[in-house]
Amino acid sequence: MKRLEERILADGEVLAGGILKVGKFLNQQMDPQLFYEMAQEWKRLYADAGVNKILTIEASGIGIAAIAGLVFECPVVFAKKSKSKNVSGEVYTTQVFSFTHGTTNTVLVSRAYLQPGDRVLILDDFLANGAALEGLMDLVRQSGAELVGAGIAIEKTFQPGGERIRASGVRVESLARIAEMGDDGSIRFA
Amino acid sequence: MKRLEERILADGEVLAGGILKVGKFLNQQMDPQLFYEMAQEWKRLYADAGVNKILTIEASGIGIAAIAGLVFECPVVFAKKSKSKNVSGEVYTTQVFSFTHGTTNTVLVSRAYLQPGDRVLILDDFLANGAALEGLMDLVRQSGAELVGAGIAIEKTFQPGGERIRASGVRVESLARIAEMGDDGSIRFA
Repeated sequence: MKRLEERILADGEVLAGGILKVGKFLNQQMDPQLFYEMAQEWKRLYADAGVNKILTIEASGIGIAAIAGLVFECPVVFAKKSKSKNVSGEVYTTQVFSFTHGTTNTVLVSRAYLQPGDRVLILDDFLANGAALEGLMDLVRQSGAELVGAGIAIEKTFQPGGERIRASGVRVESLARIAEMGDDGSIRFA
Repeated sequence: MKRLEERILADGEVLAGGILKVGKFLNQQMDPQLFYEMAQEWKRLYADAGVNKILTIEASGIGIAAIAGLVFECPVVFAKKSKSKNVSGEVYTTQVFSFTHGTTNTVLVSRAYLQPGDRVLILDDFLANGAALEGLMDLVRQSGAELVGAGIAIEKTFQPGGERIRASGVRVESLARIAEMGDDGSIRFA
């Protein structure tokens, strides 16, 4: 998606260790107009998929997913991260390792909000190693809902998540695909 | 706002200890169409206030604020909660006590995203004791930005936050104001 790529080049910052900082428009500060255009693009891609629920993970997926819910005209659910392993039986849980923080979070969603009959589109801001997306896929699987696919804002194709998840048969639509980030701050799209 | 009140009566759950659970449409599961109508109401109320930035706090404020940003046509910033007191100098920080969890969080926002010249509307899902809202007000004050006011989805008027904050001169617009919640699960609006 051209406008997202242009925005990444204009306002993204390449940091050491393959980190792309997009806090100016995608994370801590959000550009809702851009999110709306992203949502329209996912809607075009998943037009005939019968999506009736969107699932994301806190915190940086929520803004994107809420606006997408407006475009898809369906409810949006976000999975919560918890340091605690002791959670009530009213939730589905899974473990997600964060490569950024080097920690494992329990990720959970209330059973009431994911059910058989739901056709779920998972949305998230980044796809790199794929741990968060696979965690959300696991929650959908546990619930008996049907996974329609995933929509990602920015995929780092030089990290293994996207390839592994597509190979498992899941449709993944990424709006910007970064093939390489140089030590000089340069970004090459796939 | 009639439609929000109706939704609270239909899908809200009164729990022991004055807790109102609205996870079905306002928190973990979000109704984006309802959020859009709420945003239009805030826009009507703050039509001439020159809002050019919306500030909220993770996680449950983000969806509401993102959709409001679409209606106000301005960027949305969310403050992060951190257990750690050691945060870099690139951020404004404040302390917020959570009555629900009995813990104090450091709440922070990057200096880059709140600046003099910004006219800030603070949005959040609940106002009860007022700790979160006063924390966000403190971040705005530190930044030198101008606080236009606050928009709240659900205010519990039987708790002291709203009165204290209005008495301090800050405009607060709550879309549903709950005066009383009975042990029998009943809800009386103000």
